[in-house]
Amino acid sequence: MPHTYETNGAEIYLRSFATIRAEANLARFTPEEEIVAVRMIHAAGMVGLEEHVEFTPDMALAARAALESGAPILCDAYMVSEGITRPRLPADNQVICTLRDPSVPDLAKEMQNTRSAAALELWRPHLDGAVVAIGNAPTALFHLLNMLEDPACPRPAAIIGCPVGFIGAAESKEALMAAPPVPAMIVRGRLGGSAITVAAVNALASRKE
Amino acid sequence: MPHTYETNGAEIYLRSFATIRAEANLARFTPEEEIVAVRMIHAAGMVGLEEHVEFTPDMALAARAALESGAPILCDAYMVSEGITRPRLPADNQVICTLRDPSVPDLAKEMQNTRSAAALELWRPHLDGAVVAIGNAPTALFHLLNMLEDPACPRPAAIIGCPVGFIGAAESKEALMAAPPVPAMIVRGRLGGSAITVAAVNALASRKE
Repeated sequence: MPHTYETNGAEIYLRSFATIRAEANLARFTPEEEIVAVRMIHAAGMVGLEEHVEFTPDMALAARAALESGAPILCDAYMVSEGITRPRLPADNQVICTLRDPSVPDLAKEMQNTRSAAALELWRPHLDGAVVAIGNAPTALFHLLNMLEDPACPRPAAIIGCPVGFIGAAESKEALMAAPPVPAMIVRGRLGGSAITVAAVNALASRKE
Repeated sequence: MPHTYETNGAEIYLRSFATIRAEANLARFTPEEEIVAVRMIHAAGMVGLEEHVEFTPDMALAARAALESGAPILCDAYMVSEGITRPRLPADNQVICTLRDPSVPDLAKEMQNTRSAAALELWRPHLDGAVVAIGNAPTALFHLLNMLEDPACPRPAAIIGCPVGFIGAAESKEALMAAPPVPAMIVRGRLGGSAITVAAVNALASRKE
């Protein structure tokens, strides 16, 4: 007997988002933030994730405005850049991941840092006004914060800081929110990752659910 | 003041896996399964995930043997195929995602199903002995189960069934484990997703941590 199941993609989205809004505790978010939090919960399959989501007051609007005016999206991993739904982007925005640039391994050795951190040095020409999406490496977020300590470093419009894991992830996100150099959002603690980060970008790119 | 943090990738992995083994409840897994569960917890940043991980008794060994003998890896989403670490693959295995094949949108309309499910029809020439990695769409896992109800459909060597979400994810994984057509593993319930799925593939591809 073949399995029967919901096969209508639009209906699946609709019922998923309705379930999330019925179960999750979204009251503290602004309407713009709520759209982002709902989509992150959806990607994680986890009601409760919202308890760990923090925005600076202006972040959701700043990121949306930047994307609408054509900002590039700078990603620390290909799982992030590949996940971004191109038809949702409001201005055919460039999606950039520099991790596989041939110069990165040598640069990482020279910097005595990870390839994920070294790859950010190649973001400099694109960084001004960009939306940053860090969904994998704590070292990338820490290195970005150190880059931005130089007042001559170009400023992104907003930072989605959602690295994941057990060593440095919580600490890098706390460091970002302790002194946000630009509008920012995080998932506090160990949780994070590419799917959640992609969901935030996709939500900020279009209000369409 | 620049932030100081652990910048040695090997050290980050080592300490991450040590933290997971200290905190997680891994006693019920075989040694082969434990390697997979630890890497999935790492990708999710979530101790406790292991409570939801289930393997059929032969899955971890069957999947590892298939990969070592050159099996292709069939992925339902580009976030999965992009995340697989190519240098970990034991036989330069092909990694295949058919989601963007130009025939998929029309096929989905004809099948009255999602593009994720329709894309699996293009797996048929690769399916015999393959390792399947479903990390996004419940409809893909349900459709695979229906394809495998036909005894003439080629059999994969193993299925990693980790679709995520609120509509059909839990149900599709329960259906897989209620009558596994081939060796299989799942994350029960709503949790799942590309990062967790990629972690399982990367762990089955190489014992190296």
